[in-house]
Amino acid sequence: MPIQMELQRIIISEMQDRQIIVLKEVDGLRTLPIVIHSTEAYAIDRRLKGITLPRPLTHELLASVIEKMGGQVERIDIHTLVDAIFFAHIVIRQNDQLLEIDSRPSDAIALGIATMVPIYVAEQVLEQAST
Amino acid sequence: MPIQMELQRIIISEMQDRQIIVLKEVDGLRTLPIVIHSTEAYAIDRRLKGITLPRPLTHELLASVIEKMGGQVERIDIHTLVDAIFFAHIVIRQNDQLLEIDSRPSDAIALGIATMVPIYVAEQVLEQAST
Repeated sequence: MPIQMELQRIIISEMQDRQIIVLKEVDGLRTLPIVIHSTEAYAIDRRLKGITLPRPLTHELLASVIEKMGGQVERIDIHTLVDAIFFAHIVIRQNDQLLEIDSRPSDAIALGIATMVPIYVAEQVLEQAST
Repeated sequence: MPIQMELQRIIISEMQDRQIIVLKEVDGLRTLPIVIHSTEAYAIDRRLKGITLPRPLTHELLASVIEKMGGQVERIDIHTLVDAIFFAHIVIRQNDQLLEIDSRPSDAIALGIATMVPIYVAEQVLEQAST
Protein backbone atom coordinates (compact mmCIF):
# COMPACT_ATOMS: atom_id res chain seq x y z
CA MET A 1 0.00 0.00 0.00
CA PRO A 2 1.39 3.41 -0.88
CA ILE A 3 1.59 5.83 2.03
CA GLN A 4 0.29 9.38 1.66
CA MET A 5 2.89 12.00 2.50
CA GLU A 6 3.12 15.77 2.37
CA LEU A 7 5.88 18.28 1.86
CA GLN A 8 7.19 19.23 5.29
CA ARG A 9 10.27 21.30 4.50
CA ILE A 10 12.50 22.63 1.74
CA ILE A 11 16.07 23.21 2.83
CA ILE A 12 17.81 25.53 0.40
CA SER A 13 21.49 26.28 0.78
CA GLU A 14 22.58 28.94 -1.66
CA MET A 15 26.16 27.70 -1.60
CA GLN A 16 25.45 24.48 -3.47
CA ASP A 17 23.39 23.00 -6.30
CA ARG A 18 22.01 20.06 -4.29
CA GLN A 19 19.08 20.93 -2.07
CA ILE A 20 16.86 18.81 0.20
CA ILE A 21 13.12 18.43 0.46
CA VAL A 22 11.57 16.48 3.32
CA LEU A 23 8.27 14.61 3.00
CA LYS A 24 6.34 13.51 6.09
CA GLU A 25 3.65 10.85 6.50
CA VAL A 26 0.17 12.39 6.69
CA ASP A 27 -0.95 9.73 9.23
CA GLY A 28 2.38 8.91 10.82
CA LEU A 29 5.75 10.15 11.91
CA ARG A 30 8.16 8.89 9.30
CA THR A 31 9.93 11.44 7.11
CA LEU A 32 11.63 11.01 3.76
CA PRO A 33 14.49 13.32 2.72
CA ILE A 34 15.05 13.66 -1.03
CA VAL A 35 18.04 15.41 -2.58
CA ILE A 36 17.06 17.55 -5.57
CA HIS A 37 18.62 20.22 -7.81
CA SER A 38 18.41 23.94 -7.09
CA THR A 39 16.26 24.73 -10.15
CA GLU A 40 13.47 22.41 -9.00
CA ALA A 41 13.89 23.44 -5.34
CA TYR A 42 13.35 27.08 -6.27
CA ALA A 43 10.40 26.08 -8.48
CA ILE A 44 8.79 24.17 -5.58
CA ASP A 45 9.37 27.07 -3.19
CA ARG A 46 7.99 29.62 -5.66
CA ARG A 47 4.90 27.57 -6.55
CA LEU A 48 4.22 26.75 -2.89
CA LYS A 49 4.19 30.48 -2.14
CA GLY A 50 2.04 31.23 -5.19
CA ILE A 51 4.61 33.62 -6.64
CA THR A 52 3.88 34.31 -10.30
CA LEU A 53 6.24 35.90 -12.78
CA PRO A 54 5.51 37.88 -15.97
CA ARG A 55 6.44 34.89 -18.13
CA PRO A 56 5.76 31.24 -17.22
CA LEU A 57 8.82 29.32 -16.04
CA THR A 58 9.11 25.66 -17.00
CA HIS A 59 6.79 24.15 -14.37
CA GLU A 60 4.12 26.79 -15.01
CA LEU A 61 4.42 25.89 -18.71
CA LEU A 62 4.01 22.21 -17.85
CA ALA A 63 0.92 22.97 -15.71
CA SER A 64 -0.62 25.07 -18.44
CA VAL A 65 0.05 22.40 -21.13
CA ILE A 66 -1.75 19.79 -18.99
CA GLU A 67 -4.69 22.12 -18.36
CA LYS A 68 -5.08 23.25 -21.99
CA MET A 69 -4.90 19.65 -23.20
CA GLY A 70 -7.82 18.76 -20.94
CA GLY A 71 -5.99 17.02 -18.12
CA GLN A 72 -5.79 17.27 -14.38
CA VAL A 73 -2.98 16.04 -12.14
CA GLU A 74 -4.54 13.45 -9.85
CA ARG A 75 -1.63 12.23 -7.77
CA ILE A 76 2.13 11.71 -7.58
CA ASP A 77 3.55 8.24 -6.91
CA ILE A 78 7.14 7.85 -5.73
CA HIS A 79 7.34 4.17 -6.51
CA THR A 80 10.97 3.04 -6.68
CA LEU A 81 14.34 3.73 -5.11
CA VAL A 82 17.51 2.37 -6.71
CA ASP A 83 21.04 3.40 -5.70
CA ALA A 84 19.74 6.46 -3.84
CA ILE A 85 17.80 7.61 -6.92
CA PHE A 86 14.02 7.99 -6.62
CA PHE A 87 11.66 7.30 -9.52
CA ALA A 88 8.15 8.77 -9.65
CA HIS A 89 5.02 8.87 -11.78
CA ILE A 90 2.75 11.81 -12.36
CA VAL A 91 -0.80 10.48 -12.74
CA ILE A 92 -2.95 12.66 -15.03
CA ARG A 93 -6.68 12.24 -15.57
CA GLN A 94 -7.80 12.99 -19.13
CA ASN A 95 -11.32 12.08 -20.35
CA ASP A 96 -11.80 9.38 -17.69
CA GLN A 97 -8.45 7.85 -18.53
CA LEU A 98 -5.52 7.79 -16.13
CA LEU A 99 -2.12 8.46 -17.71
CA GLU A 100 1.04 7.52 -15.83
CA ILE A 101 4.06 9.59 -16.79
CA ASP A 102 7.66 8.98 -15.67
CA SER A 103 9.14 11.88 -13.72
CA ARG A 104 11.72 12.80 -11.15
CA PRO A 105 10.06 13.41 -7.75
CA SER A 106 11.28 17.02 -7.85
CA ASP A 107 9.51 17.85 -11.13
CA ALA A 108 6.38 16.01 -10.00
CA ILE A 109 6.27 17.93 -6.71
CA ALA A 110 7.08 21.27 -8.37
CA LEU A 111 4.15 20.63 -10.71
CA GLY A 112 1.71 19.32 -8.11
CA ILE A 113 2.45 21.52 -5.10
CA ALA A 114 0.66 24.57 -6.52
CA THR A 115 -2.65 22.67 -6.48
CA MET A 116 -1.97 20.45 -3.44
CA VAL A 117 -1.90 17.22 -5.46
CA PRO A 118 -1.57 14.24 -3.06
CA ILE A 119 1.82 12.54 -2.89
CA TYR A 120 2.09 8.77 -2.32
CA VAL A 121 5.26 6.86 -1.53
CA ALA A 122 5.56 3.06 -1.87
CA GLU A 123 5.98 1.28 1.47
CA GLN A 124 9.19 -0.39 0.29
CA VAL A 125 10.70 2.99 -0.62
CA LEU A 126 9.88 4.29 2.86
CA GLU A 127 11.36 1.18 4.47
CA GLN A 128 14.63 1.81 2.67
CA ALA A 129 14.92 5.55 3.04
CA SER A 130 12.73 7.00 5.78
CA THR A 131 14.22 8.70 8.84
CA MET B 1 4.33 37.55 -41.83
CA PRO B 2 6.34 35.51 -39.34
CA ILE B 3 9.81 34.57 -40.56
CA GLN B 4 11.05 31.00 -40.25
CA MET B 5 14.32 30.75 -38.34
CA GLU B 6 16.55 27.97 -37.09
CA LEU B 7 18.92 27.53 -34.19
CA GLN B 8 22.37 28.49 -35.41
CA ARG B 9 24.46 28.49 -32.23
CA ILE B 10 24.38 28.03 -28.48
CA ILE B 11 27.06 29.98 -26.65
CA ILE B 12 27.57 28.54 -23.17
CA SER B 13 29.92 30.23 -20.77
CA GLU B 14 30.34 28.17 -17.63
CA MET B 15 31.27 31.21 -15.58
CA GLN B 16 27.79 32.75 -15.67
CA ASP B 17 24.10 31.91 -15.50
CA ARG B 18 23.10 33.91 -18.59
CA GLN B 19 23.76 32.13 -21.87
CA ILE B 20 23.07 33.07 -25.50
CA ILE B 21 21.32 31.26 -28.31
CA VAL B 22 21.41 32.62 -31.85
CA LEU B 23 18.61 32.01 -34.34
CA LYS B 24 19.20 32.56 -38.08
CA GLU B 25 16.69 33.16 -40.88
CA VAL B 26 16.16 30.00 -42.96
CA ASP B 27 15.81 32.07 -46.17
CA GLY B 28 17.90 35.07 -45.23
CA LEU B 29 20.88 36.39 -43.38
CA ARG B 30 19.46 38.06 -40.30
CA THR B 31 20.27 36.56 -36.91
CA LEU B 32 18.54 36.97 -33.57
CA PRO B 33 20.48 36.58 -30.32
CA ILE B 34 18.41 35.63 -27.26
CA VAL B 35 19.73 35.62 -23.70
CA ILE B 36 18.53 32.58 -21.73
CA HIS B 37 19.29 30.85 -18.42
CA SER B 38 21.84 28.07 -18.05
CA THR B 39 19.28 25.37 -17.19
CA GLU B 40 17.44 25.83 -20.49
CA ALA B 41 20.70 26.30 -22.43
CA TYR B 42 21.97 22.93 -21.18
CA ALA B 43 18.55 21.38 -21.93
CA ILE B 44 18.66 22.69 -25.52
CA ASP B 45 22.22 21.45 -25.97
CA ARG B 46 21.43 18.01 -24.54
CA ARG B 47 18.25 17.55 -26.55
CA LEU B 48 19.91 18.78 -29.75
CA LYS B 49 22.61 16.13 -29.28
CA GLY B 50 20.01 13.46 -28.43
CA ILE B 51 21.59 12.72 -25.05
CA THR B 52 19.19 10.76 -22.85
CA LEU B 53 19.50 10.25 -19.11
CA PRO B 54 18.17 7.45 -16.87
CA ARG B 55 15.38 9.69 -15.57
CA PRO B 56 13.58 12.34 -17.65
CA LEU B 57 14.62 15.91 -16.92
CA THR B 58 11.98 18.62 -17.05
CA HIS B 59 11.83 19.14 -20.83
CA GLU B 60 11.72 15.37 -21.48
CA LEU B 61 8.84 15.22 -18.98
CA LEU B 62 7.09 18.04 -20.85
CA ALA B 63 7.58 16.24 -24.20
CA SER B 64 6.26 13.00 -22.78
CA VAL B 65 3.19 14.70 -21.22
CA ILE B 66 2.29 16.22 -24.62
CA GLU B 67 2.77 12.89 -26.41
CA LYS B 68 0.79 10.81 -23.87
CA MET B 69 -2.04 13.35 -23.89
CA GLY B 70 -2.35 12.93 -27.66
CA GLY B 71 -0.64 16.09 -28.82
CA GLN B 72 2.12 17.05 -31.18
CA VAL B 73 4.18 20.23 -31.16
CA GLU B 74 3.51 21.93 -34.48
CA ARG B 75 5.51 25.13 -34.29
CA ILE B 76 7.03 27.77 -32.03
CA ASP B 77 6.09 31.44 -32.45
CA ILE B 78 8.27 34.15 -30.95
CA HIS B 79 5.69 36.88 -31.27
CA THR B 80 6.54 39.81 -29.02
CA LEU B 81 9.54 41.69 -27.62
CA VAL B 82 9.08 44.16 -24.76
CA ASP B 83 11.96 45.71 -22.80
CA ALA B 84 14.43 43.10 -24.11
CA ILE B 85 12.14 40.24 -23.01
CA PHE B 86 10.86 37.84 -25.65
CA PHE B 87 7.43 36.19 -25.45
CA ALA B 88 6.62 32.98 -27.33
CA HIS B 89 3.83 30.49 -27.95
CA ILE B 90 4.14 26.76 -28.30
CA VAL B 91 1.50 25.59 -30.80
CA ILE B 92 0.27 22.06 -30.07
CA ARG B 93 -2.02 20.05 -32.35
CA GLN B 94 -4.49 17.83 -30.44
CA ASN B 95 -7.42 16.15 -32.24
CA ASP B 96 -7.41 18.66 -35.12
CA GLN B 97 -7.39 21.56 -32.69
CA LEU B 98 -4.48 23.96 -32.37
CA LEU B 99 -3.63 25.02 -28.81
CA GLU B 100 -1.48 28.10 -28.23
CA ILE B 101 0.44 28.01 -24.96
CA ASP B 102 2.47 30.90 -23.47
CA SER B 103 6.15 30.06 -23.04
CA ARG B 104 9.58 31.57 -22.80
CA PRO B 105 11.47 31.06 -26.10
CA SER B 106 14.07 29.00 -24.22
CA ASP B 107 11.55 26.42 -22.94
CA ALA B 108 9.83 26.32 -26.33
CA ILE B 109 13.12 25.68 -28.14
CA ALA B 110 14.31 23.14 -25.54
CA LEU B 111 11.04 21.28 -26.09
CA GLY B 112 10.93 21.57 -29.88
CA ILE B 113 14.57 21.13 -30.85
CA ALA B 114 14.59 17.37 -30.26
CA THR B 115 12.02 16.89 -33.04
CA MET B 116 13.06 19.82 -35.26
CA VAL B 117 9.86 21.79 -34.69
CA PRO B 118 9.87 24.91 -36.94
CA ILE B 119 10.54 28.24 -35.22
CA TYR B 120 8.83 31.43 -36.45
CA VAL B 121 9.69 34.97 -35.38
CA ALA B 122 7.37 37.95 -35.95
CA GLU B 123 8.77 40.46 -38.46
CA GLN B 124 8.44 43.30 -35.93
CA VAL B 125 10.49 41.35 -33.37
CA LEU B 126 13.21 40.82 -35.97
CA GLU B 127 13.15 44.50 -36.91
CA GLN B 128 13.78 45.45 -33.30
CA ALA B 129 16.35 42.85 -32.34
CA SER B 130 18.05 41.22 -35.32
CA THR B 131 21.77 41.65 -35.96
